[in-house]
Amino acid sequence: MNDNISSLFFNAQHSPIGAFSSFTIGYPGAKGGLGLELGAPANQNVYIGIQSRDGEYYEAMPFCDVAPGDDEAKRYDVEHSDRGIVEETVASHKPIRIFGSGAISRTFAVSTDSWRGGDLEFTVYSPVMPVPDPATASDDELRFALAPVVLTELTVDNSQGTEARRAFFGYTGSDPYAAMRRLEDTSEGRFIGVGQGRMTAIAARGDSVNAALGFSIDTILSNDHSDNFAFSLGNCGLLLMDTPAGQRCTFQIAISFYRGGLATSGLDTNYLYTRWFANIEDVCEYGLSHFAEYKAAAELADRDFSPDGLSTDQCFMIAHSIRSYYGSTQLLEHDGEPLWVVNEGEYRMMNTFDLTVDQLFFEIRMNPWTVRNELDFFLERYSYHDYLQFPGDGEVHPGGVTFAHDMGVGNVFSRPRFSSYELSGLRGCFSYMSQEQLVNWILVAGVYIEVACDENWRNANLETLKACFLSMLNRDHPDPEKRDGVMSLDSSRTGGGAEITTYDSLDESLGQARNNIYLAMKCWAGYVILQRLFDSTGNGNLAAHANDQAKRCANTLISHMTSDGFIPAVLEHGNASKIIPVIEGLAYPFFAGCAEAVKPQGPYSGLLSALSTHLTNVLVPGACLFADGAWKLSSTSNNSWLSKIYLCQFVARHILGISGDQVTARADGAHVAWLTDNDNAYWAWSDQMLSGRAVGSRYYPRGVTSVLWMYELSVYEPK
Amino acid sequence: MNDNISSLFFNAQHSPIGAFSSFTIGYPGAKGGLGLELGAPANQNVYIGIQSRDGEYYEAMPFCDVAPGDDEAKRYDVEHSDRGIVEETVASHKPIRIFGSGAISRTFAVSTDSWRGGDLEFTVYSPVMPVPDPATASDDELRFALAPVVLTELTVDNSQGTEARRAFFGYTGSDPYAAMRRLEDTSEGRFIGVGQGRMTAIAARGDSVNAALGFSIDTILSNDHSDNFAFSLGNCGLLLMDTPAGQRCTFQIAISFYRGGLATSGLDTNYLYTRWFANIEDVCEYGLSHFAEYKAAAELADRDFSPDGLSTDQCFMIAHSIRSYYGSTQLLEHDGEPLWVVNEGEYRMMNTFDLTVDQLFFEIRMNPWTVRNELDFFLERYSYHDYLQFPGDGEVHPGGVTFAHDMGVGNVFSRPRFSSYELSGLRGCFSYMSQEQLVNWILVAGVYIEVACDENWRNANLETLKACFLSMLNRDHPDPEKRDGVMSLDSSRTGGGAEITTYDSLDESLGQARNNIYLAMKCWAGYVILQRLFDSTGNGNLAAHANDQAKRCANTLISHMTSDGFIPAVLEHGNASKIIPVIEGLAYPFFAGCAEAVKPQGPYSGLLSALSTHLTNVLVPGACLFADGAWKLSSTSNNSWLSKIYLCQFVARHILGISGDQVTARADGAHVAWLTDNDNAYWAWSDQMLSGRAVGSRYYPRGVTSVLWMYELSVYEPK
Repeated sequence: MNDNISSLFFNAQHSPIGAFSSFTIGYPGAKGGLGLELGAPANQNVYIGIQSRDGEYYEAMPFCDVAPGDDEAKRYDVEHSDRGIVEETVASHKPIRIFGSGAISRTFAVSTDSWRGGDLEFTVYSPVMPVPDPATASDDELRFALAPVVLTELTVDNSQGTEARRAFFGYTGSDPYAAMRRLEDTSEGRFIGVGQGRMTAIAARGDSVNAALGFSIDTILSNDHSDNFAFSLGNCGLLLMDTPAGQRCTFQIAISFYRGGLATSGLDTNYLYTRWFANIEDVCEYGLSHFAEYKAAAELADRDFSPDGLSTDQCFMIAHSIRSYYGSTQLLEHDGEPLWVVNEGEYRMMNTFDLTVDQLFFEIRMNPWTVRNELDFFLERYSYHDYLQFPGDGEVHPGGVTFAHDMGVGNVFSRPRFSSYELSGLRGCFSYMSQEQLVNWILVAGVYIEVACDENWRNANLETLKACFLSMLNRDHPDPEKRDGVMSLDSSRTGGGAEITTYDSLDESLGQARNNIYLAMKCWAGYVILQRLFDSTGNGNLAAHANDQAKRCANTLISHMTSDGFIPAVLEHGNASKIIPVIEGLAYPFFAGCAEAVKPQGPYSGLLSALSTHLTNVLVPGACLFADGAWKLSSTSNNSWLSKIYLCQFVARHILGISGDQVTARADGAHVAWLTDNDNAYWAWSDQMLSGRAVGSRYYPRGVTSVLWMYELSVYEPK
Repeated sequence: MNDNISSLFFNAQHSPIGAFSSFTIGYPGAKGGLGLELGAPANQNVYIGIQSRDGEYYEAMPFCDVAPGDDEAKRYDVEHSDRGIVEETVASHKPIRIFGSGAISRTFAVSTDSWRGGDLEFTVYSPVMPVPDPATASDDELRFALAPVVLTELTVDNSQGTEARRAFFGYTGSDPYAAMRRLEDTSEGRFIGVGQGRMTAIAARGDSVNAALGFSIDTILSNDHSDNFAFSLGNCGLLLMDTPAGQRCTFQIAISFYRGGLATSGLDTNYLYTRWFANIEDVCEYGLSHFAEYKAAAELADRDFSPDGLSTDQCFMIAHSIRSYYGSTQLLEHDGEPLWVVNEGEYRMMNTFDLTVDQLFFEIRMNPWTVRNELDFFLERYSYHDYLQFPGDGEVHPGGVTFAHDMGVGNVFSRPRFSSYELSGLRGCFSYMSQEQLVNWILVAGVYIEVACDENWRNANLETLKACFLSMLNRDHPDPEKRDGVMSLDSSRTGGGAEITTYDSLDESLGQARNNIYLAMKCWAGYVILQRLFDSTGNGNLAAHANDQAKRCANTLISHMTSDGFIPAVLEHGNASKIIPVIEGLAYPFFAGCAEAVKPQGPYSGLLSALSTHLTNVLVPGACLFADGAWKLSSTSNNSWLSKIYLCQFVARHILGISGDQVTARADGAHVAWLTDNDNAYWAWSDQMLSGRAVGSRYYPRGVTSVLWMYELSVYEPK
């Protein structure tokens, strides 16, 4: 554990891949648990603990509230609040105490999360591995990558003990529909377990393992009648594991999730994993039977994602962000075809395209087919054609193809051609992002084609790429002579409003789309990439045209450089905000086979030079640095987004060659401090930080832009 | 509406049959809504209202909180709490006001619930009809009885208006997994609607009907861009219905529920209705297409269940209790065979047998096959064999067959031979009910056989009935000579504890099973019924033996009559409690073809006479009457149960011939006042009243014992 990380007690997601689920622990109190399809921790009690050496009490990890609450049993025995089950059935009551925080240690990595307290230690193993392409992979490969299970190894060291000691691992269910249950009723002898309904479960094997249900952990641990472990009216379920005196025993536990049948509406889909798992019992059995392989894979992933050359802070943020990404992933199946969805953290929007373009860098590394899958479904169901208007002008101009902001929200696919999010008549949050999602499709396609070497897909989508180019041109200016490479018209979909960017909750320095230099640079990247794609497919005229647009865009940006050495965020109305994300766009050509375009001495040397100057001048206290050294994306907003900071750190160092303490170590330290601050640590990895406070985009998948840092190491060239 | 009912604002369940769901409204605030598989109201806002005549504001029924809460939109636009969607998109903001309570009227019956406020009126129609036997009924008949839908007719009287006025009907969803959605995306033009995920929906037809989603009712009603009605990030969904100036328009609305796929665990079952409805869209379409038939059926049911001869208070309690019963019903299917489950209200235990025996009187009237279904499944999966012990004595005596307390809880079937509820080692709540559930099986079987004239079933279960008889005998005394007809041994399942009765939360006057006169009288009824069943199947010796047991039991009870003219509740340890339910057992022979046995001049005239004396003497203030005239089941407990009171009122009047104000009118008035008291009215129909306060068994199905009152009318003879 990094000594710089002030607190051990931050929530982390421990998630299967593509199961939209998370076993979340780390934050004190009933603040974690087994969450399926939620936008936040499940807020369950998680009970992990051990009997004391003298046998007189239990010690538990702090992931629960053990203060005696309103006894649930009283709801049944209404006239006898003084007559509890506990008093009647126990000889002696053994209290539960929480380990002192000084008695707990934690070792945290991308795939393993290890805790120790007293004579108890446990490690949670989460799968971090590529998802093979379902079109070509074997069932065995897919099943292993997609099993909706995370695993835990729990060790009780009773070598010093003189009596058998009991350990427990369990939770209080929070599903409103189904009760808790014991899995031995349905496991056909394969394992012992507790779970809730058909959706969540924990399971283990072994002669000394018991499963117990009750109103509370107290009633279970104090109950002397093991016959009564099947009592099913309470919401508490525990695995009980006994370790004989003088021994050290290790227990393997599967933490499983399952949603059978149709999982979404709007479009009927099921989880792809239901191909191999008929129910949660199958999942538990598979996880326990493949424990060793998952453990080995986890240790491999830990090494992969903490390479030499990256700092402890960097590795921490990579690990933490990948975990929250996987918690939002959901691999569905529609009409026999896979459908890859990344839900948007606390908001649960599905495949929000302006997140896809950032998560791209992780997905092309792990499983490029998911990128293709997203592109295909955006084109098939969530593309639309619009018209365009200048602001305040009623005249309608030709538009073109573009893409919806997202594919739905909370397991509901939105209707074709529309997102769940975009509204007419607005100029701020919830307005349309027509220009941005158009360029996002181009950028994602360009990177995918290059990294996957997928010429077939490129050729099949060439007409779409041409239509996208035309749509880009029309958004610049209806008169070709007047084009400057920068968006000047808003989509008719805005209904008289104005388009926004992904930075929907910032001020206009990043929130307004039209004439915004952040978006302009992404458009520049789009033109650069289109030039290459047209060139490589024998469309020389189009390539030249795209090149011309890229140059116009570059020249426009360069021409707006102020005497103070920065480019104002919005090229109109005297805006003077200073922003970092103008450099974001440089990342895409780098990965799309156009690395030449982002070289300091390349064809856009003037642009590169201007951006270097810009960044050097804005990355200073009072402009784009907070007092603690954290990056402030805009000089005029206190809302700064870690995912974008990570991306821009990569561009600054690896493309612009700007390094130093303010770019890396000091900034990273501040960003880690944000994430682990007690006010924020409940939400696992979060994106939007308002002066360091996680206020939005919490429990969020977008932080995997952190993997870009690995490409700064020589061994991780993009190709 | 009965003038005696002090408040209109009590929650009532409006439920399909067998769908374990309820549209609950009536109590002010966000205290009702569309609940699926819940043990309580869904606590959603239900929005039903209309634009004012001057168009400047809206008036709503009080089933919602309209105080502006924390604006959900702020979670997305974190830096601009002053920038809302509403301000940006509306010309003028129209406030929502709640109708004054004096401006609202309500007419309440078993199948219709009609409300009026200002120029708005609406009626909810809930199906109340027999469920035909799936073994013999046609698909059409079953589909009509089991469609998981309730219907609403809403009328806007704008005949005095000079402008079109908008009405709304909707709710805020509370499912944790799926978002709200508009059903026109999937209805293929069949209707307009809003819903949440695949589980709940409201739908209507008509050109002037729109469906809208939003963060709040305020943002929807104030939004001038109808394009934006599809915005899907909020939890509020409304049907919007416009009525032109000078017109009166009626809108038909389907309120639908759906659970697809496997609905339970422990045992894999699905809802039977999934045979005919592939999804909630099918349900909406069916409901809207059969509106007229459902409305006609509802009006018929209203007449059936408010016959001449019953008071308004009686009819109110019949209607209210039947509604809560249906909200707990759940018709499942396992391996192609139907499985009838009545969930236990707030506790959600499945087919709690000591409720089944009370709900029997309703089910044999409506659909006797469900009674047979329950008996069969108790025998097949939830019967067990035990041994017996005298209290404090280690010697083990032969026991016999008996039945578990329930079949599971909260959609989880418990393991075979065990309930979810019963625990070892107890003497109070949660202990075993082995004797009581044994006699319950006999009583239910006897009544079923008689009412359904099902000799085949009787003959097929004759060996079981014989085994039950033997099990009864063994619980009396291992030495035949010492048998007195009353239970004296506890089941080995209690593990050294003591058996209890259904009155698990009362003191020992009703809670203890052994030597309890309530249970003794049910055993007497069991022997009487067994005598008849053995007689009618040519088992004369067994019949004589059963007759002998019945006589012993009667003599035991008579012999304990005190000089004060009552029989103490428990025939040991000098217990002196006075209880009403000793008379419960008289109801079963009456319905099982043994009416002769309960006639004052019949073979048990001594017993009947003793019980008449007993009831007359205990039904007095200071013993078994509360100060307000409500019945107090035990002189030593303040916990009184309405379902049991209803049953005993029937027995008192119709079997014992005891009537008068304290038996009927004054008691009924007090019981209605309990149910409609503001402290209790949230829970719809509740059973356990602690000095008139609903403290347990709320939202409960058991109150259908009220239908017994209908058998007191000459037109409703049991056969």
